[in-house]
Amino acid sequence: MTAVKEDNSPSQAIGISRLVERVRAGDVRSLSRAISLVENRAPESQALLSACFPHTGSALILGLTGAPGAGKSTLTHEVTKFLRGQGKTVGIIAVDPTSPYTGGAILGDRIRMQLHEGDAGVYVRSMATRGFLGGLSRTSADVATVLEASGKDVLLIETVGVGQDEIDIVRLADVTLVMLVPGMGDDVQSIKAGIMEIAHIFVVNKCDREGADRVEREIRAMQSLTTRHGAQDWVPPVVRTVASTGKGIPELMTEIDRYAAYLQQKQLLKRHRVANWRLRLLEMLRQQFVERGIGERLGREALESYATQVVEHREDPYALVPRLMQQLLGGEGK
Amino acid sequence: MTAVKEDNSPSQAIGISRLVERVRAGDVRSLSRAISLVENRAPESQALLSACFPHTGSALILGLTGAPGAGKSTLTHEVTKFLRGQGKTVGIIAVDPTSPYTGGAILGDRIRMQLHEGDAGVYVRSMATRGFLGGLSRTSADVATVLEASGKDVLLIETVGVGQDEIDIVRLADVTLVMLVPGMGDDVQSIKAGIMEIAHIFVVNKCDREGADRVEREIRAMQSLTTRHGAQDWVPPVVRTVASTGKGIPELMTEIDRYAAYLQQKQLLKRHRVANWRLRLLEMLRQQFVERGIGERLGREALESYATQVVEHREDPYALVPRLMQQLLGGEGK
Repeated sequence: MTAVKEDNSPSQAIGISRLVERVRAGDVRSLSRAISLVENRAPESQALLSACFPHTGSALILGLTGAPGAGKSTLTHEVTKFLRGQGKTVGIIAVDPTSPYTGGAILGDRIRMQLHEGDAGVYVRSMATRGFLGGLSRTSADVATVLEASGKDVLLIETVGVGQDEIDIVRLADVTLVMLVPGMGDDVQSIKAGIMEIAHIFVVNKCDREGADRVEREIRAMQSLTTRHGAQDWVPPVVRTVASTGKGIPELMTEIDRYAAYLQQKQLLKRHRVANWRLRLLEMLRQQFVERGIGERLGREALESYATQVVEHREDPYALVPRLMQQLLGGEGK
Repeated sequence: MTAVKEDNSPSQAIGISRLVERVRAGDVRSLSRAISLVENRAPESQALLSACFPHTGSALILGLTGAPGAGKSTLTHEVTKFLRGQGKTVGIIAVDPTSPYTGGAILGDRIRMQLHEGDAGVYVRSMATRGFLGGLSRTSADVATVLEASGKDVLLIETVGVGQDEIDIVRLADVTLVMLVPGMGDDVQSIKAGIMEIAHIFVVNKCDREGADRVEREIRAMQSLTTRHGAQDWVPPVVRTVASTGKGIPELMTEIDRYAAYLQQKQLLKRHRVANWRLRLLEMLRQQFVERGIGERLGREALESYATQVVEHREDPYALVPRLMQQLLGGEGK
């Protein structure tokens, strides 16, 4: 079979272990470089992630999602300030679907970093939702692994709640916050479908606007219809905030602590993380299958040729696929 | 290895071939039943799709996407009326992401069907965006196969353009229409990212509203930034419509015909369909890998156990996955 592409030569291994050492020592440039290697799925990314992995598992991972314009970055900023006040270090991953066109990710990074300039206890990374080889939820999870290895106490993953990708990202969190704002039209209803059920805590932001009561009533109505993943006897509280003034942030932090304590007490944290890793392993296996099973064993040209035969009706795709799978998984029971 | 689950017994094969005969003869109840079997990925769905496949390849597939509230279902209705006036039969697949909560899919079916009641030349099927085992884009493609086998001349696949799933669905079309309306706020900008580049024809609906000129200017500005898949020397035209009054529909149909003729003339239709089938085969293989490679060979329990070991830091996931893949793809080079 084709040789495995990873270069695991001793010289490279030393390079990676030095990089991870510097990341662990708090060197920001090394951290940025390590994250870029992971984002680009560079050949050394597997060794890098393996080296980071032992230093993970103790940070609390917060997920934050909501409609565009709900005030997620402002809330992220306020939550970060609060955590810094408690002496905790914070790593932020901001996933922004608008960036391929507007350059929003890079701009966002600059604005966000300025807010915490000179504070080595905060690191911000923005990611666009498209163009990642490995799928966005996997890439953000791997970036979280590197960020956590850098010693951050809390990771904050922020994303716009528009599609399945974004839902998958936020599912990786221990505590998921779903943000809503009063005065959004019916269009937002469709965005909310699917993210309502992943909320551990609801945040009604811009609650000084008219309609906050109505939003809370709608949340309560939806709660009676949906089942959440993870916690069974936890009723997600609704916290009202005005992120731009910091109003409600202490109350929100109290609810986050309360949920984290609940997870510990009920031993749900581990169960939740096992469920997450099951999904992550599944996704990693699927991806390796595409790269090695289809890419190397079957070959891209063969796939193209089969597609042509299907279009020319010389192959029935519904019979072809099981046959190819049989070949790929080895000759047993042929 | 574990026995393949499909029951390919002669009695079942006769049942399926009879069902497909009835579908081909225009029996609506059989068509509905066949589509349900495919949607639910019933054991007989593979045999059913294999039996339908020879009767596909000649229908024109139209894809229609746009923001919620753009007027997609109204446009679909008007396009269908126009095609019926030309004596063409039409199959409609409407993908509605709001339906898990609102029951919109079923309601939508009823309303849509009433519009064409008593017309055997139109068949409408609505699908919710979640809860499909096989992934929505695969399921809608398979439903299209059955619909086409029923003898429809034109298939119309309509979906809300919010996520990658929806983009994948519309990519299956030969001709993709992207709908925009004047007067939508910035939030819609983020929804538009990613669907702009798949448009072969832009439809500015509700063009009697203020701002239609501005929308067209924005489209032109975006066109200079993006690259489209498929056609290289086709500049997507912008057609203005008021779907609720039928205004602009003949002009739209002219552009659709013009694009279809362009595809034929440049021999792009086949190239586009080969590219689509490459993606479909890839997705079908990935799914079979999850079912057979992971589900049967590895086993769900093993996956759960590995996830537990990862959380307990007894396994490094980044080393585990290549090792498992090696096992699944056979022992070579171990």
